[in-house]
Amino acid sequence: MMILRRAFASRASPPSHGVHVFQCPDSVGIVARLSECIASRGGNIHGVDVFVPENNRVFYSRSEFVFDPSRWPRDVMDKDFLTLSKFFNAEKSVVRVPATDPKYKIAILASKQEHCLVDLLYGWQEGKLPVNIRCVISNHARAPNTHVIRFLERHGIPYHYLPTTSGNKREAEILELVEDTDFLVLARYMQILSGRFLERYRKDIINIHHGLLPSFKGGKPAKQAYEAGVKLIGATSHFITEELDAGPIIEQMVERVSHRENLQSFVRKSENLEKQCLAQAIKSYCELRVLPYESKKTVVF
Amino acid sequence: MMILRRAFASRASPPSHGVHVFQCPDSVGIVARLSECIASRGGNIHGVDVFVPENNRVFYSRSEFVFDPSRWPRDVMDKDFLTLSKFFNAEKSVVRVPATDPKYKIAILASKQEHCLVDLLYGWQEGKLPVNIRCVISNHARAPNTHVIRFLERHGIPYHYLPTTSGNKREAEILELVEDTDFLVLARYMQILSGRFLERYRKDIINIHHGLLPSFKGGKPAKQAYEAGVKLIGATSHFITEELDAGPIIEQMVERVSHRENLQSFVRKSENLEKQCLAQAIKSYCELRVLPYESKKTVVF
Amino acid sequence: MMILRRAFASRASPPSHGVHVFQCPDSVGIVARLSECIASRGGNIHGVDVFVPENNRVFYSRSEFVFDPSRWPRDVMDKDFLTLSKFFNAEKSVVRVPATDPKYKIAILASKQEHCLVDLLYGWQEGKLPVNIRCVISNHARAPNTHVIRFLERHGIPYHYLPTTSGNKREAEILELVEDTDFLVLARYMQILSGRFLERYRKDIINIHHGLLPSFKGGKPAKQAYEAGVKLIGATSHFITEELDAGPIIEQMVERVSHRENLQSFVRKSENLEKQCLAQAIKSYCELRVLPYESKKTVVF
Amino acid sequence: MMILRRAFASRASPPSHGVHVFQCPDSVGIVARLSECIASRGGNIHGVDVFVPENNRVFYSRSEFVFDPSRWPRDVMDKDFLTLSKFFNAEKSVVRVPATDPKYKIAILASKQEHCLVDLLYGWQEGKLPVNIRCVISNHARAPNTHVIRFLERHGIPYHYLPTTSGNKREAEILELVEDTDFLVLARYMQILSGRFLERYRKDIINIHHGLLPSFKGGKPAKQAYEAGVKLIGATSHFITEELDAGPIIEQMVERVSHRENLQSFVRKSENLEKQCLAQAIKSYCELRVLPYESKKTVVF
Repeated sequence: MMILRRAFASRASPPSHGVHVFQCPDSVGIVARLSECIASRGGNIHGVDVFVPENNRVFYSRSEFVFDPSRWPRDVMDKDFLTLSKFFNAEKSVVRVPATDPKYKIAILASKQEHCLVDLLYGWQEGKLPVNIRCVISNHARAPNTHVIRFLERHGIPYHYLPTTSGNKREAEILELVEDTDFLVLARYMQILSGRFLERYRKDIINIHHGLLPSFKGGKPAKQAYEAGVKLIGATSHFITEELDAGPIIEQMVERVSHRENLQSFVRKSENLEKQCLAQAIKSYCELRVLPYESKKTVVF
Repeated sequence: MMILRRAFASRASPPSHGVHVFQCPDSVGIVARLSECIASRGGNIHGVDVFVPENNRVFYSRSEFVFDPSRWPRDVMDKDFLTLSKFFNAEKSVVRVPATDPKYKIAILASKQEHCLVDLLYGWQEGKLPVNIRCVISNHARAPNTHVIRFLERHGIPYHYLPTTSGNKREAEILELVEDTDFLVLARYMQILSGRFLERYRKDIINIHHGLLPSFKGGKPAKQAYEAGVKLIGATSHFITEELDAGPIIEQMVERVSHRENLQSFVRKSENLEKQCLAQAIKSYCELRVLPYESKKTVVF
Repeated sequence: MMILRRAFASRASPPSHGVHVFQCPDSVGIVARLSECIASRGGNIHGVDVFVPENNRVFYSRSEFVFDPSRWPRDVMDKDFLTLSKFFNAEKSVVRVPATDPKYKIAILASKQEHCLVDLLYGWQEGKLPVNIRCVISNHARAPNTHVIRFLERHGIPYHYLPTTSGNKREAEILELVEDTDFLVLARYMQILSGRFLERYRKDIINIHHGLLPSFKGGKPAKQAYEAGVKLIGATSHFITEELDAGPIIEQMVERVSHRENLQSFVRKSENLEKQCLAQAIKSYCELRVLPYESKKTVVF
Repeated sequence: MMILRRAFASRASPPSHGVHVFQCPDSVGIVARLSECIASRGGNIHGVDVFVPENNRVFYSRSEFVFDPSRWPRDVMDKDFLTLSKFFNAEKSVVRVPATDPKYKIAILASKQEHCLVDLLYGWQEGKLPVNIRCVISNHARAPNTHVIRFLERHGIPYHYLPTTSGNKREAEILELVEDTDFLVLARYMQILSGRFLERYRKDIINIHHGLLPSFKGGKPAKQAYEAGVKLIGATSHFITEELDAGPIIEQMVERVSHRENLQSFVRKSENLEKQCLAQAIKSYCELRVLPYESKKTVVF
């Protein structure tokens, strides 16, 4: 009891903040075991979010905790959670200590439209996007001294121009370039990645669609929306699956439009939503808030 | 000049408030002629909203004005605007003095779901829905002393139970019952009105769809949305045309949903949106704010 | 381990839903002990929200859990949490099983304005306000057959008319009438309750103020706001303390206003916000989401 | 009639867009005369917004119109509106043709905090802030190669460092520097401009306050708000008058805060609101949407 009650005040090192997500078959006592594991190392849970779908005996949780790194070394933490993971036959168990763990490594794929790419680069520069950008890949040519190219050069981020044709999507080269990334971001990349690419890459790919899916799948969604006379337009960030624009949705945002808008203002509003929606989705993903569930859904804690 | 400047202070009767909408081929000087017409009768314009689509030489306007009924009798007003209407070859010219003109006469068609019907009845009772409800028609049976039936009896609103079959949609009887209405409201009426009905009725029919059209057309849109794992659900109020769920959209509303919702909570949130969306659409329509334009769009001033 | 993993499927009775809030000096392992306590009775935690203020070593938590009432009888649950409470020197430990525990008993105090009172009564009738209304007290006279009086009669809720004077606030009588309530709701009660009343009643009193506190304390806040030319108006629901309009804030809501509004429309918008804001505050309070902290703040989980 | 009806199609030059605001004693026929004036030059009104306060016989309007510059030269337009202005004894009559008129000339005053200044500079660079920045004045020292200084140098905008003391506010120098501006923007300038400065400058000064005025006047409003335990924080953009933080409000924005926020996150959210609120106020001002009315209010069309 004395141990349990010893406050952080007496510790040598400042407390660290950790996040843990867990997915396993539902059973009794999972949170108890998780929090016991954390407490046994002197850690303190600051929040647990649990989700068990109604007709599906799967347990999803996300826990935030504060701990003393000198008392709970990072490798021990990994082992502790691995033990738990085995005990509960977990499908997924990820722990992160954002302040000290390496950042997620990503690659960004873009085409002609730059608004999402630029917004991600700015967000990254300002420290809002906690990732390590390994490279930017584009199938659209850019002059050497354009704003984006200069930005990338200044920050030492490689830029690869891989023009695609209907016969050659350059997927093998892309795969090689993104091999060591943790996930991919399609910032308005106007090419469909093949099932083969998805199989080989195997990690998550986050896309932004400038329509409120499942409305307006495919090309020119802003134009489709404009012609349908909608009063609300939106953007959707989702995981890529083989079926076009049908992967699990992570985030959606909308904005009101009126009869005064023309196609250009629809596009402008769409683009503004896309930027925010994609940035939010990536942020949630990096904070371990996003878990796919069932075939087409996501838990977003 | 003296006449123009004479303030309202000297008038005998209190000022009235009028609304005028106008649709005609675009040309120069329409607002000038409209406001001159109003000023020449001592009226004062308090706002003019004009819309001319980019690629379409059509002029739409909605004006609000204040006038002295003793100086501009209602029948003279009608004649004045008719003259203007002819001058500009107007397709549409409607003037209303809400405080003294007869209210719009409507009929409400409903099926089993009552939330929209009940909301409209309450809104009407509280004076928020400025219409005269001629009757309520339902293809779903209700016990005599249910809440809705008692409400209708108490307020002397006829209730007609017209059960439909696949072979008999009771459209002839409905047509007869709604003959003297100004427009119809489908408050979750789960029958598709035939092209023939639309041709014969010829006036506007406002429907509420519990999805964010053009997503989720047809039946059970909340279920469709739930299964698609969307993060935003919505409702759409639109005019009825022959094509199912494809008429010009008047109003749309959305609400955020999360992985925690189940089908029931999706339905509950949808229903709440439907009520608000339908009420808003009818209110806008009665205030002469809604004008269809092109084949699938609306101007909503 | 077998016990831990036994799924709910084998249980006899349907699972119940419980809520537990806890406030104690911060220490290590509190969540672990809480969840262990719940798991040891076969219960499953579905969410834990923890808050520890930065400069204050106090631990606040709110847990939701699912349990089998046949395995964890209500009186045993109380004893279990009492043991925990003693172990951690808790200042506050409340557990509720909303479906079966008695509802909170409240009394509503009102004056002339009825919009908040009526809204609470409707919400209560529709089951949205999970309370037991012991009585309504008013210092403003109402004719016997007004809407409110008839509603109260129909539902058997006592109505007490206690007119106040500057010399007699009727506080002794009020105290007697509200003796067995769990908390009080001031639904636009335009009298200041004395420090002596607060001391004697000792339980929580929730008030609604029709301004965005701390702006516009005291009387006629809508008028104050109107004259200040603000572009946003609001309402504030807060706990009553001795200092006028300065108790801990539970909920605030705002709405945009423009130069077009007059004092009446300011008041109308304010009243609409007040209703929503007060209803939300009471709902949060009944769901054990609201905990006062420091002298002037609240945790709202 | 033929002249009136001649469509734009036959014109040589592309149509221009104009805005006109007007403030005069209320009388009958003002809109009629305004629109007649525009139509007589072949212009087309695309919207008129009129406001007449309830207890105040003042007429305010803002009109948007499209015209052919070759048929209505800019100097003739000025004369036409001047004639109208005299006819109606207008207190205010301003006309602008945004695409061709010179941009408003402004100076920005800042102190240590840079977020509003930087946001304005970026907005200006992206063409969202339609002004000509004559200079930036700061009473806080900046190293020569900081981000802001480099930005200003790159764009040739003079930067003046004028450190203030309690005895010397440098107002004479500031007045000289801003002599040829159209209005001033205080982007978190932490000095109070004296009544004498205001008298001499005589033009509008727009300030941003990081609180929801009239709450939290004076210093450290985020801290005041934090300590008051509010659930909503805001920012207010307003005109400067002699009374501190009491000038007519142009725009206000709010954001929800919870018990989880600390003072830093309050400040961060406040700063984000301030940027948006100030940018919106300047945009509205430049579009001739903002008119002060009565002593403490604004019309924002």
